[in-house]
Amino acid sequence: MNDFKMALRELKAPSDEWYAKAWAHLDRLTMPPRAMGKLMELAARLSSMRRELAPTMERFCVVPFCADHGLFRPQVTNSPQIVTELVARHMAEGTATVNCMARLHGGTVLPVDVGIKGDLSDLGSRMVHRKIAPGTADFASGLAMTLLQAQECLDVGAAVARHLAAENDFLAVGEMGVGNTSAAAALAAVFTGKSAAVLTGLGSGIDEGKLAHKVALIEKAIALNRPDPSDPMDVVSKVGGFEIAAMAGFIVGAAAARRPVVLDGFVSGAAALLAVRLAPDCRGYLVAAHRASERGHGTVLDALGLEPLYSLDLHLGEGAGCPLAAPFLRSAVALMGLPTFEQTGVPEGISEDGTRGAK
Amino acid sequence: MNDFKMALRELKAPSDEWYAKAWAHLDRLTMPPRAMGKLMELAARLSSMRRELAPTMERFCVVPFCADHGLFRPQVTNSPQIVTELVARHMAEGTATVNCMARLHGGTVLPVDVGIKGDLSDLGSRMVHRKIAPGTADFASGLAMTLLQAQECLDVGAAVARHLAAENDFLAVGEMGVGNTSAAAALAAVFTGKSAAVLTGLGSGIDEGKLAHKVALIEKAIALNRPDPSDPMDVVSKVGGFEIAAMAGFIVGAAAARRPVVLDGFVSGAAALLAVRLAPDCRGYLVAAHRASERGHGTVLDALGLEPLYSLDLHLGEGAGCPLAAPFLRSAVALMGLPTFEQTGVPEGISEDGTRGAK
Repeated sequence: MNDFKMALRELKAPSDEWYAKAWAHLDRLTMPPRAMGKLMELAARLSSMRRELAPTMERFCVVPFCADHGLFRPQVTNSPQIVTELVARHMAEGTATVNCMARLHGGTVLPVDVGIKGDLSDLGSRMVHRKIAPGTADFASGLAMTLLQAQECLDVGAAVARHLAAENDFLAVGEMGVGNTSAAAALAAVFTGKSAAVLTGLGSGIDEGKLAHKVALIEKAIALNRPDPSDPMDVVSKVGGFEIAAMAGFIVGAAAARRPVVLDGFVSGAAALLAVRLAPDCRGYLVAAHRASERGHGTVLDALGLEPLYSLDLHLGEGAGCPLAAPFLRSAVALMGLPTFEQTGVPEGISEDGTRGAK
Repeated sequence: MNDFKMALRELKAPSDEWYAKAWAHLDRLTMPPRAMGKLMELAARLSSMRRELAPTMERFCVVPFCADHGLFRPQVTNSPQIVTELVARHMAEGTATVNCMARLHGGTVLPVDVGIKGDLSDLGSRMVHRKIAPGTADFASGLAMTLLQAQECLDVGAAVARHLAAENDFLAVGEMGVGNTSAAAALAAVFTGKSAAVLTGLGSGIDEGKLAHKVALIEKAIALNRPDPSDPMDVVSKVGGFEIAAMAGFIVGAAAARRPVVLDGFVSGAAALLAVRLAPDCRGYLVAAHRASERGHGTVLDALGLEPLYSLDLHLGEGAGCPLAAPFLRSAVALMGLPTFEQTGVPEGISEDGTRGAK
């Protein structure tokens, strides 16, 4: 059986029973009701994913999936296409922003080549080499990829997740692919039913002139290819990217291995939308690290039903926003070790007439 | 000269020159313009505070100032008054929520007794013992404290900050004092000119009935004492708390020592308003860890001109939200070590016709 199918078979939604157990404990901690706010909710969610009260959240790996896009043209991005390869090399060599952030917060980075134009075989085991093809086809003149290629991407993602789950407490997903905010916007537009204009942002920092080109290009690709919103494989093959499809496979694979999977910005969000359409039970394992400044990200997070841990207008991609989720996950779990009212002897409350306990 | 006056004399606003130097470097990093968003702004601010490009942000201490309040009555809070002492004991013994969070993120906690009702001398050096009096007077029937007591509080705070600055890269401020969201709301109402109703929240988790009592109590205290908004010492002596005054002294002392000072929730925010009124140049050293769910906190942050690092509906106080600021400060500084475009050789951009560099 292939890797993605295996993941689908293993996948189970997080445990309601553990979620309830976690809250029963959290509600006894020596503090006013729910005083640690959404960190408590995160703690309960982590318990429900890992089926234990205080799961360890130390080791993590950020996996940036990297590929080029046939839609690339200088009218819609500020980055030369070679930037995909150059940044992927920096990721493999440990010198990109995502590596810096991951190291700082105790994690690792493993980039995956699923479709970079250049040859990166010299990087050896510092990168996973699973190139589907040297870039997708141009979605403005046909399918971005074949259904078989889309399936291959899902398998690559699921296989990488399965491998990494064995040695990590949680996983995180990033990407590198010049042009991929266009593919992500197209995908998100189809899945959410919103217009391309609502979902298309400045990507690498383009101006309003390029933005108009970008929206028009995405509209053209959707009009030409007519992706069927109810068929996720149809959608991703028509307007997706190799790295976006692989990210979806990775998310489902991580969820199947009961690992929380941390999302970065807009492109990971679009990949998560795809993953949730393919396998709804993976949704409960998603953690949105942050709300990016890329225009469509809020819409994507709403569609996923996720609230981000922080919102600092990041718009880099790579997975660079994921490592800062680690201290939140660890803080959430640490709450589980706090003493309860029973243990501290601190009284729980008083009523208005001064008698105790009637909170 | 007393400690607070000395801090006032030493205090200088963060350096505009270092702020500009920091941005000049940040704008050369290998990423689209400002792609790490407000983390880059934080990095520039930290440079400007510490007058160096990449200041270390490892060692920190959270200092919860603890005191009781004459305004205490069961009609406005859910906590018995003894909870101030009990939680302060847990802070000193390392078992409160703030200790757990500080340990997790590599910091320490040093509680200060500036006015707890009980005797905590048995805790020895695990706590700073600078009790002004066993609780303030009831602000609903007169001054909360004398001007001399308010001055003493400022000196205690400034002295503690000076002492801790020597061995910490940044400082953080918390509090414990049953009833202190009432004092903080009164203070914030006077300084911002907003009504008590806008600034008064649920504190320890009171219901709407108690909330109405609480608002009425604060309105009564303000009407009776008539604090003069243009005279911060008048305001704090009339409606403040010992711990709030001491926190303001601490903030000014930390700023005088050029240390970033991290604020927790609503009560620290009110203390920061007081500090900024006393010494406007301390404002540039403030970092708001988070936006709490306590009703008035947004108004207070706006008045301070601060954007929080995260917003997870915490409403504990103690300083428990501060340690999670540490990974943000460290991430911000780490950006300074990233390679520039010149170092990586990654091209900076292309114009619409495909030529390079015309971003």
